[in-house]
Amino acid sequence: MSPHQIAREKVEQAVEILREKNVDAWLTFVRETPLTRDPSLSLIVSPDLQLTWHSAFILSQRGDRIAIVGRFDKENIEAIGAYTEVQMYDAGIGQALVTTLLRLNPDSIAVNFSESDPAADGLTHGLWLTLLQALNDAPFAGRLISAEKIVNALRGRKTPTEIARITDAVADTEAIFDEVTAFLKPGQTEIEIAEFIHDRMKSRGLTTAWDIDYCPTLTAGPNSPVGHAAPGNSRTARGHLLQIDFGVNKNGYVSDMQRTWYFLAPGEAKPPADAQQAFEAVRGAILAGADSLYTGAPGWKVDMAARDYLMEAGYPEYMHATGHHIGQTVHDGATVLGPRWERYGQSVYGEVEADNVFTLELGAAVPGRGYVGLEEDLLVTPGAVEWLSHPQTELICV
Amino acid sequence: MSPHQIAREKVEQAVEILREKNVDAWLTFVRETPLTRDPSLSLIVSPDLQLTWHSAFILSQRGDRIAIVGRFDKENIEAIGAYTEVQMYDAGIGQALVTTLLRLNPDSIAVNFSESDPAADGLTHGLWLTLLQALNDAPFAGRLISAEKIVNALRGRKTPTEIARITDAVADTEAIFDEVTAFLKPGQTEIEIAEFIHDRMKSRGLTTAWDIDYCPTLTAGPNSPVGHAAPGNSRTARGHLLQIDFGVNKNGYVSDMQRTWYFLAPGEAKPPADAQQAFEAVRGAILAGADSLYTGAPGWKVDMAARDYLMEAGYPEYMHATGHHIGQTVHDGATVLGPRWERYGQSVYGEVEADNVFTLELGAAVPGRGYVGLEEDLLVTPGAVEWLSHPQTELICV
Repeated sequence: MSPHQIAREKVEQAVEILREKNVDAWLTFVRETPLTRDPSLSLIVSPDLQLTWHSAFILSQRGDRIAIVGRFDKENIEAIGAYTEVQMYDAGIGQALVTTLLRLNPDSIAVNFSESDPAADGLTHGLWLTLLQALNDAPFAGRLISAEKIVNALRGRKTPTEIARITDAVADTEAIFDEVTAFLKPGQTEIEIAEFIHDRMKSRGLTTAWDIDYCPTLTAGPNSPVGHAAPGNSRTARGHLLQIDFGVNKNGYVSDMQRTWYFLAPGEAKPPADAQQAFEAVRGAILAGADSLYTGAPGWKVDMAARDYLMEAGYPEYMHATGHHIGQTVHDGATVLGPRWERYGQSVYGEVEADNVFTLELGAAVPGRGYVGLEEDLLVTPGAVEWLSHPQTELICV
Repeated sequence: MSPHQIAREKVEQAVEILREKNVDAWLTFVRETPLTRDPSLSLIVSPDLQLTWHSAFILSQRGDRIAIVGRFDKENIEAIGAYTEVQMYDAGIGQALVTTLLRLNPDSIAVNFSESDPAADGLTHGLWLTLLQALNDAPFAGRLISAEKIVNALRGRKTPTEIARITDAVADTEAIFDEVTAFLKPGQTEIEIAEFIHDRMKSRGLTTAWDIDYCPTLTAGPNSPVGHAAPGNSRTARGHLLQIDFGVNKNGYVSDMQRTWYFLAPGEAKPPADAQQAFEAVRGAILAGADSLYTGAPGWKVDMAARDYLMEAGYPEYMHATGHHIGQTVHDGATVLGPRWERYGQSVYGEVEADNVFTLELGAAVPGRGYVGLEEDLLVTPGAVEWLSHPQTELICV
């Protein structure tokens, strides 16, 4: 498969989305991308190509696919095969950009800013000002609109190639979790277990889904902090729980999963009632979320189904969203399956769409034992959800 | 040395710069940093810590060092030891941000947007709108100014720890170039030489200074494209030149250098006149640039000195800037030593300051032989420049 397959699929899909949303043109405007990189670049250009000079990528409802880049980038952009017109410049992009837009004369030009979706918010404020100035003499500055709904749809609706890659990343993650199960013993530190996971991951030629210092995060026993903390010196112990949050990046697409183990105490044949009850509440809440995960559902309703289930089972409210898109990144923008809190802004009012891939994740503390956390990866199809991971149905006993 | 040494030095330096520039407060406002990451975070927080929720870092002339972050990030920010006050929130950052600013009541609040300096342009347009809205009821929206001059100075003026790290990266790069000299033979492809360089780099535990696919870039002979092209199948040959542009990242700081080799033809004891003449013109232009690189010089004047020298020597104008800062990144923002072209905006009007580290780079094609390119790394001191690299004084003969 060509390394440019994703960019070609996504550029084609973007033109369709412009037609569906009736937006004339979409402009991605970037510069010096190693310093500030618009997340849309990785979809419609390349996951690793860097652009130093101001560069513009213009797609239109009519099917125009135009790139305007600095002299030294022309060949690399042509090699992608997604753009039918690649212009180059030396001194400055302004004139080529204005001339091109005058030719297309779009009624609306969507650019990448969004308050609620970080993945659709790749345009820096300085570049916004540059754009206003460049378009000031032409009649375009007043035609700029947010590309949020374009980027949301483009990023959220996975193509067959993207779905295959995520599925693959999930399968590798599950295989690594199986290896963890065989490796676990009482008395191991979180750091030891994290090193084992990194070793297994590297032997498969994979990288972590997010910052390696926090991937995996582990909660061993009742005294380890839950959340974005690096693996520490807490140790696994009989009668305690171990929760691991981990994902891999395979061919540019990620998984994001949580699993929970229980270390049987002497004389125990199965987990004790308090751990088992928490597990069932967490699993039930995930299932309640999955039942509400259908096309057209607003994100907050999916969250509410899972959140209410857990709280009605007698556990405290968790202070994070129930789910998020995954794709090239682990928080892949667009609709969040979260509560209507200020920090989620408009993102939880977005609707679930077919071909979205979401995680569902939540957990509950068990006093004296640790933390039960589960996270599953699911594909939304027109009629149902498809579990990309094999959902955990029992505490894994060590 | 603590992994947080750089953040501590830079936060302290930032407070001094606020006093010097008479700016009351500097606010770095970010969220979901794996998707859109403000380059200033790597200076004042951490090069690798990621922040998911909206997070604010406020420094003031009076010496306040305040972080406001989501619940799960509090411990990680406290561990840095650069912030004297770390607030956490759950539902949304707005109230804590406004309350804190009301308490400080700054006359001016610098935020990270800039048209001319990508390194000072980390605030996305969506976050700018969020900030305007959050500060709308408080009397602050009208007090927002660009932090460009703060970030320029902070990024550009290297601390002793930063200078030591860059010097170290340069030394490793020179050692690798020496290994390349011993390795080179006629008939090798650019790809083979790039693989050798990557192998030597990895054996030292280093990574590339920029995107590995384009680091190094090589120009073997007269038919290889000059510039941002990946290594290709052009081969070294007797009577031809080989130019390599390469840098490493060591402990988070980079080098950026170019060297040129000449492959002696049968019967030759030294490079022929056309190659030698180009080398002397290029070296002379670099020295002319270095002579003009003193505190207070505007960037464009340094560029002009080098550019004019090369053109007066009879070679065509190069279509890029003569130099740029290096530091945590290879194009480290702030003042560019470049011509007054549109695409460089205001960046070439900035002034050279003490403790800046710049590259000087330029080259000339030699018809039928290839390309001569040199790039050196220099530290600006109050009285002079200090060459961090050992400047190339002769074509290296193979």
